Order: sequence, then C-alpha cells, then structure tokens
Amino acid sequence: MRTKENTARLLISCADRPGIVAAVSQFLARQGANILDSRQHTTDPEVGRFFMRMVFYLDDLVSKRDALEAAFNAEVASRFSMDYRFSRADRRKRMALLVSKYDHCLLELLWKWQRDELEVDIPLVISNHDDLRTVVEAYGLPYFYLPVSKDTKPQQEAEIDRLLKEYKVDFAVLARYMQILSKDLADKYSTRIINIHHSFLPAFIGANPYKKAYERGVKLIGATAHYVTDDLDEGPIIEQDVERVSHRDQTDDLVRIGRDVERKVLAKAVEAHVEDRVIIYGNKTVVF
Amino acid sequence: MRTKENTARLLISCADRPGIVAAVSQFLARQGANILDSRQHTTDPEVGRFFMRMVFYLDDLVSKRDALEAAFNAEVASRFSMDYRFSRADRRKRMALLVSKYDHCLLELLWKWQRDELEVDIPLVISNHDDLRTVVEAYGLPYFYLPVSKDTKPQQEAEIDRLLKEYKVDFAVLARYMQILSKDLADKYSTRIINIHHSFLPAFIGANPYKKAYERGVKLIGATAHYVTDDLDEGPIIEQDVERVSHRDQTDDLVRIGRDVERKVLAKAVEAHVEDRVIIYGNKTVVF
Amino acid sequence: MRTKENTARLLISCADRPGIVAAVSQFLARQGANILDSRQHTTDPEVGRFFMRMVFYLDDLVSKRDALEAAFNAEVASRFSMDYRFSRADRRKRMALLVSKYDHCLLELLWKWQRDELEVDIPLVISNHDDLRTVVEAYGLPYFYLPVSKDTKPQQEAEIDRLLKEYKVDFAVLARYMQILSKDLADKYSTRIINIHHSFLPAFIGANPYKKAYERGVKLIGATAHYVTDDLDEGPIIEQDVERVSHRDQTDDLVRIGRDVERKVLAKAVEAHVEDRVIIYGNKTVVF
Amino acid sequence: MRTKENTARLLISCADRPGIVAAVSQFLARQGANILDSRQHTTDPEVGRFFMRMVFYLDDLVSKRDALEAAFNAEVASRFSMDYRFSRADRRKRMALLVSKYDHCLLELLWKWQRDELEVDIPLVISNHDDLRTVVEAYGLPYFYLPVSKDTKPQQEAEIDRLLKEYKVDFAVLARYMQILSKDLADKYSTRIINIHHSFLPAFIGANPYKKAYERGVKLIGATAHYVTDDLDEGPIIEQDVERVSHRDQTDDLVRIGRDVERKVLAKAVEAHVEDRVIIYGNKTVVF
Repeated sequence: MRTKENTARLLISCADRPGIVAAVSQFLARQGANILDSRQHTTDPEVGRFFMRMVFYLDDLVSKRDALEAAFNAEVASRFSMDYRFSRADRRKRMALLVSKYDHCLLELLWKWQRDELEVDIPLVISNHDDLRTVVEAYGLPYFYLPVSKDTKPQQEAEIDRLLKEYKVDFAVLARYMQILSKDLADKYSTRIINIHHSFLPAFIGANPYKKAYERGVKLIGATAHYVTDDLDEGPIIEQDVERVSHRDQTDDLVRIGRDVERKVLAKAVEAHVEDRVIIYGNKTVVF
Repeated sequence: MRTKENTARLLISCADRPGIVAAVSQFLARQGANILDSRQHTTDPEVGRFFMRMVFYLDDLVSKRDALEAAFNAEVASRFSMDYRFSRADRRKRMALLVSKYDHCLLELLWKWQRDELEVDIPLVISNHDDLRTVVEAYGLPYFYLPVSKDTKPQQEAEIDRLLKEYKVDFAVLARYMQILSKDLADKYSTRIINIHHSFLPAFIGANPYKKAYERGVKLIGATAHYVTDDLDEGPIIEQDVERVSHRDQTDDLVRIGRDVERKVLAKAVEAHVEDRVIIYGNKTVVF
Repeated sequence: MRTKENTARLLISCADRPGIVAAVSQFLARQGANILDSRQHTTDPEVGRFFMRMVFYLDDLVSKRDALEAAFNAEVASRFSMDYRFSRADRRKRMALLVSKYDHCLLELLWKWQRDELEVDIPLVISNHDDLRTVVEAYGLPYFYLPVSKDTKPQQEAEIDRLLKEYKVDFAVLARYMQILSKDLADKYSTRIINIHHSFLPAFIGANPYKKAYERGVKLIGATAHYVTDDLDEGPIIEQDVERVSHRDQTDDLVRIGRDVERKVLAKAVEAHVEDRVIIYGNKTVVF
Repeated sequence: MRTKENTARLLISCADRPGIVAAVSQFLARQGANILDSRQHTTDPEVGRFFMRMVFYLDDLVSKRDALEAAFNAEVASRFSMDYRFSRADRRKRMALLVSKYDHCLLELLWKWQRDELEVDIPLVISNHDDLRTVVEAYGLPYFYLPVSKDTKPQQEAEIDRLLKEYKVDFAVLARYMQILSKDLADKYSTRIINIHHSFLPAFIGANPYKKAYERGVKLIGATAHYVTDDLDEGPIIEQDVERVSHRDQTDDLVRIGRDVERKVLAKAVEAHVEDRVIIYGNKTVVF
C-alpha cells in the first residue's frame, strides 16, 4: 500500500553508459518496488554524466530499507560506480532559516510550511536582528538573535555553526540574511545553504543590486536562488525569475516589485531542494 | 554509432502497473540499444494510464527494425497490453499546410522548416485563396488553390482529402485556415490535424475572438493550438500562451499583438507533434 | 511643499473634444497647483470618451479644497459636462475584507497593508466561517463571523450591509469569499466590490474552475479580479494573470499553483483601485 | 480632418517646474490643434527632468508647420529652456539595416515593414557577407556587400558612413551585425544606431553570451536592444526580454531559443524608436 512511509526517492549520478535505466528499474522490480515517477538527464550519452531521480514505493519499506540499500549498492551502484542516495518521503528535511530585517521571504516560507506545502521541519530561525522575533515565535518556532559586527563575526558564525549542529539541521536558507558568510562557513556547508540574491545573476553581483539596476536602466529586474559557495553570488543557480519595470520605477519601486520575485523564486528553489529534485553538477544544477 | 538513421523513438501507452519501465528498458538493453532519453507519465500508479516516450539508438537499426518490433510486441507489449509505436528519427513526417489569407503562421512554419528547426517534409500547401502562392512557391513548394463556397464545400473538401492521400501526408496544420472543416473531414483525420485558434481556449470559441476579447475587456489575449475533432475548438489542447494588452488596445491592436502569440504557439505545438512528444489521452494531451 | 496632505488626485471622464487637457492644466496652473503626474486615455478623439487622472499638489490644500472644487466645477467641468472626482492622497479609502476559509488572498492584502504598501484603512473583516479569526485579530482588526445558509442568506446579507454602513466602508474586497452575493447586494454596492475569481475569465465561469480547467486540459491557469455586478463573474475586469501548468498537474496542483496567481492578481487590482487608477467605462476598465 | 499628413508628434525635454503641461496644451489649443495622445514623465517634480510626448493634429499642418514651430519656440520652448522636436507622422524615418549571416532579426523587421506594421522606409541593407543578398533583394531592397577584415575595417566603416549619408539614413539597426563598430563610427552615430545583444544585459557582455550563459547555468536567457555608444554593450537600454531554459538545453539550444527573444525584442525597440516613444536621458531611456 502506498503511504508516505512506504515511499522513497532514489537519486543517482554516474558516468553515462548503456544499461543504467534497465539495471535500476530491474533491481526495483526484483525488490517488489513500484516506480511512481522516474526522471533522467544525461549531459552526453557517450561521454557524459547521467542523473536520475526515481520515486518508488515498497510495502514495509521502513524495515526493509537497510537491506534494500545494501542490495542496491552491491548489485547496481558498484557496477556503474554510482553516487547515489536514498531518501524517505516521510522523513522531512530539517531546514534552518536565517534572516536579517526584511520579512517577505521568511514569511513566504513560514506560510507555505504551515499549510504543509513545504514538507520540511523548521527547527530554528536565526537572525542578526531582533525585529522578527514576534513574527517567528507566533509560528511556534525558536528564534535566535545573534547580532554581529565586523569584530564579532567569527564568534557569531561559530555560534551559527554550533546551533545548526545542535538542531541537526540538514540545510539552511538565507532568506534575505544580509551578512556575507565567511569562506570557512560557506565551505563547511557548501551546497547545503540556499541564498536568495535580489538580482538576475550574473547581473548585479554584490551589494545594492536594485540601485545598480536602476542606474543601468534595465527594463526587467530579477531574483536568483542559488547554493552558497565560497565565491560570492557565484554558486550553482537553482531558480530565477524576472519582473518588468519601466522608467516610472525609482529604486524603491524596484525594491518593492523585487520582493515578490524574490519570495517566489526562493520558495520554488527551496521546494525543489526539499523534494530532492535538484542535482548539483559542476557549478550548475539539474532541476527535475 | 549514433546517427539519425540509428536513432528511434518508442511511444507507449497502457494501463499502469508495476514493472513496465523495467520490462521496456531491459528489452532494449537485451537488444543492444542505448537509451538516449526517457520520459514517463502516469495519471495514477494504481488505476491509471501510463505513458512513455523513449529515444534510443541501435547500430544497424534500419535492417534490425522489423525484428525489433516483432520482438517487442511478443516480449513486452502483449504482456502489458500496450499501445505502442516505433518511429525512426530519420523518417520525417509529411506535413501539409492549409492557409487562407493571413501569412504569419504559415511563414513562421516555412521559415523554421527551411532552417531545419522543424524536421518535417512539406509536400504541399493548400489554400482557399490565391494570395500566398508567390510566397509559398518561393520556398519551392507546390501550392494548391482550392476556392470554396457554401455550395462547393463538399467537393473542395473531397479534393483536400484526395490531395492529402496522394501526397501521403502524415498530418496537416491549419495555419489560420479560416474554413471550418466538416464533421466528415474532421473525423477522417481526427487527431491528425492541428489548428491554431486565436484565443485562449476555452474563452472566445468560434468567430471573431479578438473582437469578443475587446468587448469583454480582458487584460490578456491568447492563442491555442489543438488537435481538430468534430467539435469546433473543443479538441485536445497542445499548447497555449498569452500576451498582455490594455485599454489602449483597439480590436485591430489585439489582432496585431495576437499574431505573434499565434505563430509562436503553433510552432511550438507542431514541433512537439513532429518530435513525437505529444500523446493524446481522452480529450487532453501529455506533452513531454 | 509637497506632502501627502497637500497632494490630491483628479479623476475626469467626459465626451472627448479639443481643449480638455489645456483647460484642466490651465485651471490647475491658475490655482497655483503643481502637476505631479498626468495620464489620459481617449476611446476615440472625435466621438469617444476621454478619461484623465491627474495628481497635483497645492500648498494648504486642506483649507482650499472646497473652493478649488467649486471653481473647477464652474470653470471647467460644466464647460465639458465632466464627471469628475477629487480625491485627497492623505485620505485613505476604507476597505472591508470578506473571506471564507482560504487565507491566501486575505493574508496577502493584510501583509501589504501592514507594511504600508497598500494605503488603505481596514475597518473590519467579515467571514462566513470562524477559522480565520485568530489570524485577523492578530493584525488588530475586528472580525465578524456571519455564518450563512440557504435560508438565512437574506438576513446575513442585511447584516453585511449594515456593518459596511456602520463602518463607513468605501469598498469591499471578496478575498475568496465563496458566497455568491444576491442581486440586491451586488446592485447596492455595484462597482464598489472587487472579487477574485480563480480562473482566467471568461473561461470557467462559476464553481470549480480548477476542476473544469483540469478536465479541459488547458496548459495555463489564471485568476481574474473584477468589479462585482449582478451578473456572476461578468463584471468589469481589472486585472488578470496566468501560470503555466502541465499534464503532471492534478486538480489539487492547479489549486495550489492558482493560489499564487490569485493573490498576486487581487493585490494588483486592489492597489490600482486604491490609487484611483481604475476608471470603469461600460463593462470594461481603463487602468492607468 | 485627421489624416496622417495633419498629424504630428511633439517631443519635449526640460527641467521640471510647474506650468509646463498647461503651457504646451494651451499653446496647441490656441493654434487650433487637437491633442490625440499625451504622455509625460518626470524624474522628480522639484529638481528633476520632465519629458513629454504629445500627438496632435492640425488642419493644413503641412503649410502651417514652420510657423507653428517658430511660434512654439518663441512662446513656450524658450520660457522653459526646452529641448524639443516636432515630427510629422507622415514622414517616415529612413532606417538602414546592417546584418552579418543570421537572418532571424532581419527577416522579422523586413516582414513587419512589408506589412506596414513598421512605418519606416528602408533605403538599404548592408552586410559583411553575401549570404542574405537573395532574401533582401526579394523584398526589392538594395543590398550592399561590404566584406571586412581587421586590416580593412577603417575603409569598410568609411564606406558604411558614406552610404548612410548618401541614402539620407535617419538611423541604423544592427540586426545581428557581428562586427564591433569602432569608437569613431559609434560616436558619429551615437544614439542613432540600435543594436540587439543576445543576452540580458548587463549579464554576458561581449562575445559568445549563449556559451557563457550555458556555463553559468542560468535558468533564463535573454536579449537586449540598446542604443550603441562607444562603450560596448553599455548604451541606453530600450527593451529586454527573457525565455526560460533548463538543464536539458545545450548551448545550441540556447542559441535557437534565443533567436525568438532577439527578434521580438529588436522589433519592439525599433517600433518604439520609429514612433518617437523613446527619449534618452543619461544612459537610460524613457519609453512611452
């Protein structure tokens, strides 16, 4: 019977060659699993990289899981030198939110989480300001106020790191968290942190993108959600979108219009990540 | 070696149940075929319908093709009561174009065909006017001028039918062909004719959709490409798109703005059909 | 000095003929007013209707206002048989919200109102359910729970009417208020009620538009904000937008995807109304 | 009587201050002119720049024109230190097209010109290749093949300059003309040349933007039409648009998808320029 408990996702990445789909689907069939959804992508069938995301269910998955994984490793993964990951649909990822003062991205995620559109657990929210405490605590979530200055940054980041570990956080989302993470922290959590940058990357990297957009006189503004790497705003892009603007719009209009794009883009990116639909390859993503 | 000759598509439709993906990929692997692309969709894994489109290549496909199909039928298709179709990538579909006076959709298709973006053969163009003869013949294509009136419609349609057969046409595209096909002709070619309707269906069915859109005061106009059935404008939708309009736009502005949407939507729909990415189910389409 | 108190909007509608812009701008110049923004639209310069929205400021407007209006009436409006309305930028419209169970549109408006992006006063929220009381009262707003059944509808609507009067409401927004207003109530508040309909009108009028959209197999779903008239879903359209969907989306996916379009469209429409940028003409709108 | 001959456009730019709209409309009213359309924009009503585009008609404009302009200069323009320009609706601008090998942007403009959607005269087409001669001459237009190499560039540009003068060209459009104009030529024709750059500026400046877009892994690609200045790809932006792409798209897919965006954006920009709806201010545009 198909329940959340019995449903799992299998993510695979390996050098492409003939026979992978057959091997994987055959394996699952032998195990008595039913494939619900299957998506693949190959960068080049002869010399490229193969990516697959399969969703399947298997009666009594909970007790069979370890044996299934061991069998998969032995019978399939090793044959193809696969990187792979099983992920149970009923085990929610634990997502930490970091925010500064602007609440629009935060609220979008909290609201979708609360109505179960975003199937994550939110163990904590961290902020370098105290402004959003009331809002966050109204959702019944722990709020950690960690102010930071140029001098206290290493200690503040050490505390962030400590909290993420303590709360067994799977990934973090910088929901207009306006501090630039140090190389250390970015490296430590590489590809486990999603950031929303308020421009259409690679345009307007860094600070004040709306002001720069206004000065350049662009006719569209955008937002980009990407994984954080130690290279500012250069990490793999997960999702982007734009909105039309005109000569009528001053910088603060761009800021206002941009808010809706930011929250929409960030929500889509977080959703894709949560559903294991994002695979990172090189500095790019495959988003199933 | 992967060449167009050695590449084929396999389209499958059947009642969903466990084991289909395994059976198909296993079969292809046994035959020595390499899967290039594989997309599936199920309406409901327990009681629904399963659709798959696989692209694979097989050395020496041309000579092995018949045996391959026979083997597939015996070993897989019959087991799952599949509707299926093999389609060779190097065998272009033969597409007839029907047009009246407006050239924008016609030109878009001719232009994409000429630059090989649309991998079809165009055996002929039929029109109930003579206006576009020069344009069409400049592309080196046969142009058939078949005027029609209320009285001569049955004979004109009989001639269309005759020409489509004579030229071994696989499917036809009504590229702003402004005559409503009779039930007979629509039935005969059911799902083998694609029409572009200049509105966002199901809004503004029938004649003068731009005028009706203007009167309703909509803020977006659209176009819809769909398969023709004997129910006017009710056939399975393949693709739709819209464009923003405002109070500034009179009916003839809507007509002008609408042209770009129509040609874009029709081209996308024809491309999907040509690439065997469209599966009709009920009165809807799965577009891979 | 330009302050909100000194800023006003002038909305004009009249039969078009030469000299209107000159007369109006000349009048304002004579009064010592500075024009900040001026937008016009004419349906036909010879026999059509002229619409204008001017924003201007005038030192000491508060005390001069009545005299200004009287002078305008005498010197300009009567000459051109104008319908006109002055509206002070500092006098916020009073907007009532009606909602049933779905909170997405409501929350969007409350959130924008709270951050002053929507410059209205919200005197009260009315609902036929009690579900959203906590949410609304958290914003510090009065919540009126008015349950309704087929039998009690006239009394319930009488109470709505009474409350709207008591709270001196300028206009109301049906933010996914799922009851169909009676002809009486619709007539009484004609063009003073904005509704969000969860389809791209005129497609899928009435109930269950997402289900109908699913059945029709459209490739885009939409939402439409319009003024309520006594003709269901037929009133003047203010704003519309769409979102792409595919064969993968079941009806509940359409509902989920549609939520974002609904709240975005409703917010834009309410904003336009609040800023006096919407003029109703016939069954259509001019939206400056 | 309103005819194309009697219709003119007045473009104004000056320091903003009270009374401009009144002065201009009053002047036109005194002259017996009827305003058809009037759009304004001010960057800041107190210390900013004011822009206006008025369309009006005046019986017997052809003979009255010079007197009208003289009167306007004396009575209005000098008072406000205006930069202004009258432009008769029946006098088409003369537009030269420059192209290399790709025909999509060229064809779009030729097609719209031929059906009178683009109200320009096209005196000549210049190319550094001979490929598109047949296509262009089929439209009845003179084609000048001016090959160029690193060494011959100055002479080739001198010939371009000579031809533009000889044919009394008002402005030129680089419709995927792949040569970078020298500073000299760019300066000489500053703001009289429109270029289409196949990226969403300021992202991916310079060569191979699609390749760079592919490498960055963006989820949207775009195109930008801008006035050419002596700073490569840095000139005032007129119009931009984007199209969604995914991991499935290789560089040549981006090129193919990008073509539709490029021709659409370029056509919109050229249309706006032709209709005198574009005002350049600083390095930006106001597009009415």
